[in-house]
Amino acid sequence: MSRNVLLLPGDGIGPEIVAEAEKVLNKVNDQFNLGLTFDKALVGGAAIDATDSPLPDETLEKARNADAILLGAVGGPQWDSLPMAKRPEKGLLGLRSNLQLFANLRPAILYPQLASASSLKPEVVSGLDILIVRELTGGIYFGQPRGVRELENGERQGYNTYQYTESEIRRIGRVAFEAAQQRGKKLCSVDKANVLEVTVLWREVMEDLKREYPDVELSHMYVDNAAMQLVRAPKQFDVIVTGNMFGDILSDEAAMLTGSIGMLPSASLNSEKQGMYEPCHGSAPDIAGQGIANPLATIISAAMMLRYSLNEEKAAEAIEAAVSKVLDQGLRTADIMSDGGKKVSTREMGEAVLNAL
Amino acid sequence: MSRNVLLLPGDGIGPEIVAEAEKVLNKVNDQFNLGLTFDKALVGGAAIDATDSPLPDETLEKARNADAILLGAVGGPQWDSLPMAKRPEKGLLGLRSNLQLFANLRPAILYPQLASASSLKPEVVSGLDILIVRELTGGIYFGQPRGVRELENGERQGYNTYQYTESEIRRIGRVAFEAAQQRGKKLCSVDKANVLEVTVLWREVMEDLKREYPDVELSHMYVDNAAMQLVRAPKQFDVIVTGNMFGDILSDEAAMLTGSIGMLPSASLNSEKQGMYEPCHGSAPDIAGQGIANPLATIISAAMMLRYSLNEEKAAEAIEAAVSKVLDQGLRTADIMSDGGKKVSTREMGEAVLNAL
Ligand SMILES: CC(C)[C@H](C(=O)O)[C@@H](O)C(=O)O
Ligand SMILES: CC(C)[C@H](C(=O)O)[C@@H](O)C(=O)O
Repeated sequence: MSRNVLLLPGDGIGPEIVAEAEKVLNKVNDQFNLGLTFDKALVGGAAIDATDSPLPDETLEKARNADAILLGAVGGPQWDSLPMAKRPEKGLLGLRSNLQLFANLRPAILYPQLASASSLKPEVVSGLDILIVRELTGGIYFGQPRGVRELENGERQGYNTYQYTESEIRRIGRVAFEAAQQRGKKLCSVDKANVLEVTVLWREVMEDLKREYPDVELSHMYVDNAAMQLVRAPKQFDVIVTGNMFGDILSDEAAMLTGSIGMLPSASLNSEKQGMYEPCHGSAPDIAGQGIANPLATIISAAMMLRYSLNEEKAAEAIEAAVSKVLDQGLRTADIMSDGGKKVSTREMGEAVLNAL
Repeated sequence: MSRNVLLLPGDGIGPEIVAEAEKVLNKVNDQFNLGLTFDKALVGGAAIDATDSPLPDETLEKARNADAILLGAVGGPQWDSLPMAKRPEKGLLGLRSNLQLFANLRPAILYPQLASASSLKPEVVSGLDILIVRELTGGIYFGQPRGVRELENGERQGYNTYQYTESEIRRIGRVAFEAAQQRGKKLCSVDKANVLEVTVLWREVMEDLKREYPDVELSHMYVDNAAMQLVRAPKQFDVIVTGNMFGDILSDEAAMLTGSIGMLPSASLNSEKQGMYEPCHGSAPDIAGQGIANPLATIISAAMMLRYSLNEEKAAEAIEAAVSKVLDQGLRTADIMSDGGKKVSTREMGEAVLNAL
C-alpha cells in the first residue's frame, strides 16, 4: 500500500519550515516502514509568480489525489495589492473549498517547557489544552452574494453574506461532539444568537445533536463573551465549536494565549478524513529566508497528519516525543527564546528532531 | 438652559447600578449648577414584562428628546427563549439604530490601583490605555436580507448580510481619526480585507481619509491578528477602529485585558453628539438583587456623558477624581477584590463616591 503526501511549501518561511518537516517525515517513513511517497506543488504567491494563479489546476489535481497534504504558509506584501480573486489566500481558500475540508482542528496547548512565553500569568495558563473546532468551508468566507455595488445615490456599498445550512452545521457539530467525547467531554458552542439569525439556527442544530451525545456536556456562549473568557479563564474550556469567521478570530486568540504560536499545528479534514495540515502561524515575510523560523509547528502538523489522515499513531507519537525531547534539551528558535535556552536555526532545530527520533 | 438626562435602568443589576450613578449625577448637578433634569423609562426585559415590547414607543420618544441617556444593562435568562424580535437586546439595538448612535467609544484602561486584577502579566498591561471605536448602527447587525429560509431540498438555511456604504465607513473613520489626534496619534483599522469584500471597501475609505489627518499614523490589521496582538502586546495600540461585529468581539477582549470590566464605561454617539452611555459589562443576572454589583463603570459612564454630550468637563473630572479616590482608599466591590482591600456593597461604593465628591 503506497500513500501519497503532497507538500505545499507556499510563501515566506513556508519553504524553510516544510523542508525540515519533510526530512522528519522521510525518517519516520523509513523507521516505521510507512510506504509514503512524496510530491510537491506550488500554491499561493509562489504559484502566482510562476503561473499567474494562486491555485494552478495541476496543484488542485495533485491535492485531490493525495492522501494528505502538508502546507507551509501563503501570502506576503508583494501580492497584497492584487485583486482579491488573484491573491495568495485564494489558493488556500480554494483548496479548503474544493476538497471540502470543512473541519478545522486547532489545538491551543501550552508546552510546559515554554510556560513563561505566555503573556498571561502562569496560574491562568499552565496546563492549558483547548481544542477549537472551526467550520472551514462555509459561513461568510464563502457566502454569496458578495462584492461591491453602486447604490442609486452613486456611493459604493460592500457586502458579504453569512450563511449556514442545517447540514453544514450538523456535520461540523458531529466532529466537535466526537472530539469532546475523546477529551474532557465538554463542548462549548460559540455564536451570536442574540443578534444573528444564522447563529440562532446554529444553536438549534447543536442543541438537537446533543441528544446523540449524552455523555458530552454542551454549553453555548456569545462570541464577545468567549473572546473575554479566553483571556480571563481559558482553562474553563475543553472543546470549542464555532463558524468560520468566529473560529478564525478565536483560534488565533487562543493560540496566542500560549505565547508560542510557532509551536501550534492545525488540521483541516473532509468527511473521508483526507486532510490538509499546516502550522497555525502565517508566512512571516519579515523573517523569510533568514533561516531562523521555527519549524516545530510544521513538524507537529506532520505528526497530526500521520495520526488523523494516515492512521499511523506510532509514528505520530514518535515525532511528538522527539519534539518534546529537543525542548527538554533547551533548544529554542528565536521566537521561543523568552525563557532562555540555546538559540538554534531552523535547520538546527530540524536536525535536532531527526536526531531525537 | 435646562437639559434632560434619560435614565434607563434596564434589567439584572441595571437598576442597582443606575441608582448609584443617579445619586452621583444629582450631587454634581447641585455642586456645579448644571441645570440637569432627569427622567426614567423602561427598556429591555423590564419593558417586555410591562408592555410586551423591549422598546416601548414612550421610551423611544423620551430618548429622542433627551440630551443624553444613561443605560444600565439589558437581558436575562427569563427572556432568552423569546423570538429574536421580542428580546431585550432589541431594545438596545433599537435605541442605537433609531437615534443613529453610530460611534461607540470603548476605552480599555488599566487602573493602577487594580493592576493585579488582570490575568496578564503586569509588564504586559501596566499603563494600558486603548480606545476602541466601534461602528454601531451598521454592518452585519443591521444588514438586510436576514432570516432563516427553506431551501429546495427542504433543509433550512440561516443568513445575514454584512454591509457598509462608503459614507457609513467615512463617518466612523472621522470619529476615530479625530480621537487619535487627541490621543497618541496612532490609529489601527481592523478588517478582514484578505477575505471579505465589504472590508476591502472599508480599508480603501480609511486610506482615503488618511490624507485629511496627516498627523495621524494609520495602520491596518486583519481581525484574527488583532485578536492575537491584543493578547500578545496590547500596549502597541492607541486607537482601534472597526465595524460593528469585529468591534463587539475585540472591545470585549480588550476590556478583559484589564481584569476589571466592572470599571469600564462606554459612549455611543450620533452626529449631533447626542449620546447613550452605559457600562461595558452586561446585566449579570446571577448577582442581580444582591446589592454586590460594581456601580463604578456606570458612574464613570455618567462622567463620560457629562464630558461628551453635556459639555461639562469640570463635573466629569470631579467624578473621575472621586472614583480614583475611593480606589485609593482601598474600597472594592466583590468583582475587584483580587488584590485585597475593603469589601463594600453597591450602595456603599456609591456613597463613598458621593463623599469623595
Ligand atoms: C490567510 C487567511 C485567508 C486564513 C483565514 O482567514 O482562514 C488564515 O487567517 C487562517 O486562519 O488560516
Ligand atoms: C447585548 C448585545 C446585543 C450587545 C452587542 O452585541 O452589541 C452587547 O454585546 C454590546 O456589546 O453592547
